[in-house]
Amino acid sequence: MSERLIYLPLGGAGEIGMNAYVYGYGEPGKERLILVDLGVTFPDMDTTPGVDLIMADTRWLVENADRLEAIFITHAHEDHVGAVGRLWSTLRAPIYARPFTAFHAQRKMEEAGQNPDEVTVVEPWPEVVEAGPFKVAFVPISHSIPESSGLVIDTPAGRIAHTGDFKIDTDPGVGEPFDEALWREATGGRVRALMCDSTNVFSSHPGRSETSLGVGITKLIAAAPQMVVATTFASNVARVKTLAEAGVAAGRSVCLLGRAMRRMVDASLSTGVLKDFPPTVTAEDARDIPRADLMLIVTGSQGERRAASAQLARGKYLGLSLREDDMFLFSSKTIPGNERGVIRILNAFSEMGVDVVAENDDYHVSGHANRPDLERMHRIVGAEAIIPMHGEHRHLREHARLARESGFKSIVAVNGAMVDLTRAEPHVVEHIEADRVYLDGTSMIGALDGVVRDRIRMALNGHVIVNVIMEDDEPLGEPWVEIMGLSETGGSQTPLADVLEEDLNQFLMRAEDKTLRDDGKLEEELRRIARKSTLDEIGKKPECTVVISRLEG
Amino acid sequence: MSERLIYLPLGGAGEIGMNAYVYGYGEPGKERLILVDLGVTFPDMDTTPGVDLIMADTRWLVENADRLEAIFITHAHEDHVGAVGRLWSTLRAPIYARPFTAFHAQRKMEEAGQNPDEVTVVEPWPEVVEAGPFKVAFVPISHSIPESSGLVIDTPAGRIAHTGDFKIDTDPGVGEPFDEALWREATGGRVRALMCDSTNVFSSHPGRSETSLGVGITKLIAAAPQMVVATTFASNVARVKTLAEAGVAAGRSVCLLGRAMRRMVDASLSTGVLKDFPPTVTAEDARDIPRADLMLIVTGSQGERRAASAQLARGKYLGLSLREDDMFLFSSKTIPGNERGVIRILNAFSEMGVDVVAENDDYHVSGHANRPDLERMHRIVGAEAIIPMHGEHRHLREHARLARESGFKSIVAVNGAMVDLTRAEPHVVEHIEADRVYLDGTSMIGALDGVVRDRIRMALNGHVIVNVIMEDDEPLGEPWVEIMGLSETGGSQTPLADVLEEDLNQFLMRAEDKTLRDDGKLEEELRRIARKSTLDEIGKKPECTVVISRLEG
Repeated sequence: MSERLIYLPLGGAGEIGMNAYVYGYGEPGKERLILVDLGVTFPDMDTTPGVDLIMADTRWLVENADRLEAIFITHAHEDHVGAVGRLWSTLRAPIYARPFTAFHAQRKMEEAGQNPDEVTVVEPWPEVVEAGPFKVAFVPISHSIPESSGLVIDTPAGRIAHTGDFKIDTDPGVGEPFDEALWREATGGRVRALMCDSTNVFSSHPGRSETSLGVGITKLIAAAPQMVVATTFASNVARVKTLAEAGVAAGRSVCLLGRAMRRMVDASLSTGVLKDFPPTVTAEDARDIPRADLMLIVTGSQGERRAASAQLARGKYLGLSLREDDMFLFSSKTIPGNERGVIRILNAFSEMGVDVVAENDDYHVSGHANRPDLERMHRIVGAEAIIPMHGEHRHLREHARLARESGFKSIVAVNGAMVDLTRAEPHVVEHIEADRVYLDGTSMIGALDGVVRDRIRMALNGHVIVNVIMEDDEPLGEPWVEIMGLSETGGSQTPLADVLEEDLNQFLMRAEDKTLRDDGKLEEELRRIARKSTLDEIGKKPECTVVISRLEG
Repeated sequence: MSERLIYLPLGGAGEIGMNAYVYGYGEPGKERLILVDLGVTFPDMDTTPGVDLIMADTRWLVENADRLEAIFITHAHEDHVGAVGRLWSTLRAPIYARPFTAFHAQRKMEEAGQNPDEVTVVEPWPEVVEAGPFKVAFVPISHSIPESSGLVIDTPAGRIAHTGDFKIDTDPGVGEPFDEALWREATGGRVRALMCDSTNVFSSHPGRSETSLGVGITKLIAAAPQMVVATTFASNVARVKTLAEAGVAAGRSVCLLGRAMRRMVDASLSTGVLKDFPPTVTAEDARDIPRADLMLIVTGSQGERRAASAQLARGKYLGLSLREDDMFLFSSKTIPGNERGVIRILNAFSEMGVDVVAENDDYHVSGHANRPDLERMHRIVGAEAIIPMHGEHRHLREHARLARESGFKSIVAVNGAMVDLTRAEPHVVEHIEADRVYLDGTSMIGALDGVVRDRIRMALNGHVIVNVIMEDDEPLGEPWVEIMGLSETGGSQTPLADVLEEDLNQFLMRAEDKTLRDDGKLEEELRRIARKSTLDEIGKKPECTVVISRLEG
């Protein structure tokens, strides 16, 4: 059988998060593989309560780990690098990244007890990494974190361009400007397919440059009468620098709060993506500085409960707190789904008398290419086909439509869809099971294992525990009921546990011998009665655990 | 002591939802009272999993129910009328509303087993309801539901104007246009205070009229190649009518799906707020109509799981389903906090190949007054003070600032803040405990009862149940562990329950007699060990229920 070139997204094609894209070249079923990015996504209370992190289901890749040549990381955002440490031991392939990104990948490896030396630092295009049949070059591209890269991947079946996350910003402040000539050169010639970021396909206006914000932010901070606190993603180092410089320009001492904020600036300086940063003061020093002369730059732009912004909203953080007439600037946009947490903080600050500036386009620009910029990228690369990636289904579908309108071939390939890129028309040849896995404490659990489903059910329905002790197939004493997460009393005004115990006892006294002898049947009946009595009493059907202990007579 | 005029929000001043505003006049502590609105708000998974409805904490009002003269309902939205049925038996005061609103209040009373005749239908201003020292008139005002009213409340200490929810719309399509002359006349003379809707205080452009949407919606639907499905709030009868008329204009049969949709149109026709409505077909008939000739108008614009839109997104609803090239129109705006549910539906439709039109201002207008319209209302009424209501803290604060900028006295009064309006400067004289209560199944539970907190903890941490049987202060057999919502195995690859049972057994074998004899101490130790072993094994600290059964020897 002849060789083929395949593309298989395992994460990121069906959500914005947990990116993981596989490319393969070789005989069908024996393709040599590379993986681009290995990120996480974040849980929410609606669907994943108590979960720590969500990752792509890499079972297929693990089963074929002997075919995996290398892992390439495009940039240091958590949804591209966050799972590298946790999952590396199951894949054991060399990791390649540019210095700043490699720095973060190495930290992830260390945190997971892996050897950071598995991460190799590479130079950008024209340097090439050879990995089996693949030749991969990192092509600098602008985004909202320093040193982001797209990839140009050469294979015996032709060239692929993979944008990674990007925007078209020729003046990003920190990091490399978008360089159209470079992209034309690096992707020059015939390109089989462009894999392209889809996040902002619904934004119809051209994107704005990071540096367009400087004047407005500087004015805003200069006009503030008391302390200024600003939040943004720590990884948006350009923004953090703009904020700090605006603070300094207004004669303020600048203090970075939140672990990620300090670490990201340090990493940027040490890897050279940041040449300089205004002087900062520690939280301890900040406490002694007059409020009108102070600016805090803090983590928690998405309302994260443990971040500095949320802690300040609840009161104090490292001895610092906000007061009437202070200003809090969200130099950020709330990611859909995070609204409740952010609004909670807005209202807490409002109660303190703090002036909040939020959801204001004058103080934030997106890191992703808007629709006209996507069209421009399509033209720059001029690939035969455009495969949308990094988006929910609706983004992928709209992006494919946009590409086809311009005459490109396109296809919507979601997680698990293996696409054959060898022939003119990309098409799905196979569907791989590609759900998601959860890091839950220190355990990995499958999304379909039922563990989280049980937690959601307890949250919605409460939990009743029924205990029965049997001796010689007769109940010994009366049943015992514990309830958790349910009203203590209901319609009859008698404690719910008492009502259930009485109903269960009535049943046991009348139950037939064959029921009492059969654990399965007895459990089923006790559960049925406990649920029905709870429904009658308080109108809810609880989760129910029945424990039958049998003593030898 | 001399009489005073007080205002006491119990709900709606600190959130958008569960409105309940008390006014009082008389000697301090003996004021005769009226209540304006008695609504609900809706739960979410983050803070109130499993809860059915959230209502204002009316304990203070119940304790003073003998002083309550009457309840007035401004309009039929759930956050204004939703708790009337449930809470009436604790208040037992006559309810007044205009016909369409009264119709809904009467249904709420019936559903709660109360007498619907307690609801009296009244005519608008200049008709006046006398309630103790209060003379109350309903003044028609435009909003997103027919027959909304503000109130003009005359007291011996002066006049109050209460807007209810409103927008300034002189051409609302269905229902009464905003009538500036009427409002000037009804509120004419000296007005002590204007209680004013704050929802859209952050929207800086003037509001648009409901009827401005007709042309665009008609064009959109006419251009759709296959079936059209549109969703909006069922209570926005004007919008439902616009959608239906656009469907008919495009030669389509129109089918209303979802119980609320049908009921709201019927109620509008029967109470006369709607003079006519295009003919509709049943879901059964709709199944036989060619897709290109059909339009469905469905419930579920906020992504509610049980509504028609979510059911269509999951597959079928009453035998109807969507297909490639159908169009789904959200003629609505997603309320912050509902994004996840709505996005889930958008992506499900995208997977079906349905074209979704959402979050588009061409097809939706708000029902609340924007900032310039609020300023206009301030001027129309010309009250001495403006008290912002119906908003989160940030809305109330911004609205108070806006009022003060125009020279009005203003104050932020949140739920529980009793404001004295007698003197020139409104000021808070007392704080009443005013939290929230939950309808959970058929039980009412307090927000601080701990029931929901336990459910959230089980959702985050899982639940371990430990069973120990003791005989003569000695363990009988080994402990038994059940787990729910936790990984079945952890670091040791042994089932978690086995690990816990072993650790607990080890403890019991070594435990001192005085521990074994003391239920409290024994339970505490068993819980501590179960939690620590779980933490060691899977990195989570679970909720833990310990059941100790003691047998007589």
